[in-house]
Amino acid sequence: MLFARRAKEKGIAVHAAAYINEASLSLEEHVDSIQWLHLGQVTKLLKFFQRRGVTRAVMLGTVKKTRIFTDIKPDLKALAFIATMGHTHDDGIMRAFADLLGKEGITICPSTMLLPDLISPKGCWTRKKPGRAAKKDIETGWHIAGEIGRLDIGQCVVVSNGTVLAVEAADGTDATIGRGGSLSRGGAVVVKRCKPGQDLRFDLPSSGVRTILAMVKSGVDVLVLEAGKSLSFDRREMIDLADEKGISIVAMGEEDF
Amino acid sequence: MLFARRAKEKGIAVHAAAYINEASLSLEEHVDSIQWLHLGQVTKLLKFFQRRGVTRAVMLGTVKKTRIFTDIKPDLKALAFIATMGHTHDDGIMRAFADLLGKEGITICPSTMLLPDLISPKGCWTRKKPGRAAKKDIETGWHIAGEIGRLDIGQCVVVSNGTVLAVEAADGTDATIGRGGSLSRGGAVVVKRCKPGQDLRFDLPSSGVRTILAMVKSGVDVLVLEAGKSLSFDRREMIDLADEKGISIVAMGEEDF
Repeated sequence: MLFARRAKEKGIAVHAAAYINEASLSLEEHVDSIQWLHLGQVTKLLKFFQRRGVTRAVMLGTVKKTRIFTDIKPDLKALAFIATMGHTHDDGIMRAFADLLGKEGITICPSTMLLPDLISPKGCWTRKKPGRAAKKDIETGWHIAGEIGRLDIGQCVVVSNGTVLAVEAADGTDATIGRGGSLSRGGAVVVKRCKPGQDLRFDLPSSGVRTILAMVKSGVDVLVLEAGKSLSFDRREMIDLADEKGISIVAMGEEDF
Repeated sequence: MLFARRAKEKGIAVHAAAYINEASLSLEEHVDSIQWLHLGQVTKLLKFFQRRGVTRAVMLGTVKKTRIFTDIKPDLKALAFIATMGHTHDDGIMRAFADLLGKEGITICPSTMLLPDLISPKGCWTRKKPGRAAKKDIETGWHIAGEIGRLDIGQCVVVSNGTVLAVEAADGTDATIGRGGSLSRGGAVVVKRCKPGQDLRFDLPSSGVRTILAMVKSGVDVLVLEAGKSLSFDRREMIDLADEKGISIVAMGEEDF
């Protein structure tokens, strides 16, 4: 919706291909036209874009990995596409799907194209800085989250006192924070990173008020994000809540380690 | 208890240093003497062993990682030991602790010294073999579990349809199986491996009836173990239950991949 609004301000028409059960119904009010799809309805998506003369597209939002097992309705094009995939790693699928669209005359642009202000700026965002004790856990978490991303497992890890308490896999960031926090005693660090080498056209890791709420609930008190390679859609509210709850948020880069 | 019984059969005296809240109280009935300890009571442990003329010891059983935050009562020797540790990775701590005992005249022997029959034999243990569809997930799981071990995060992963559904961290195998299984649809593979390069003197990954129960409950239908580098204490009952529930158990080695 943010993207659609920004596009309208710039006089760009927006035609949305939206996944049923994933995208918000109110997206309809913000776009010039919309096509609701199930996962796997590739032909319908291409026809919709081509009829409207779409030549540039962005991929926004995520599909819960667990949905992939339940909601998919692959058409012939999707089956042919799946058959050519040697593996089912996220990034590989996204890249191959972008190539497929490219061949049909639709170029995938970076998802932040119209929204550069959503990208995480470097530095400490909150009044409270991470304590000295958290420094080592931040280093461990940064390294481990990078490896977990490299292995295409997930984006975030929770660390406390040198021990990895929880690793995100198919369950998502909020659940991972809850799990890690419940296993810690007095403070833990969550590090959420972009996959090393991720194609930056695709959706970047995001965090927001919901992330901070999950931290508050489970006693995780430091959030580390990747500067320049992650998004926050409600940064102001997120920082206000963190400040109120004594949580630190820091956006860092590889050069800090 | 199995170890103590086997030692008695061989005419070897057993003096147990047992952790409060971790070891079973009935251990007392199986050993020549026992000293109950909190984590961190190193001096007490050394004195107990030295007074009884103990020169060889094995480390058996695990201490839940989450306990480390709550139950530790470090004495001066423990604090000095902790101070020399650059990190808190499991294997490093165990190795350093074995060295510390070695300097005091107590050699740590492989935990399987008297129990070679507990070690997982290679092959398929159950009537049901993993289906063709599981082959790829077994490969993925084997690789990922190795990496997770190398990073000192945990021992097991749950995989389904090429996606890593859950990774064990501080929460343990049964919780990980439950989490992974609940995110899968119709079947998943759990791979539990020994850390690559693990010091085989220390406790090896184990599985048993409890593992199969966790799988039944959450719908995970293939268990892959590491042949020669993992233990099962109740293998017969474990296989019987797996056969009854249509679960496959296979013990494999690096050479199978």
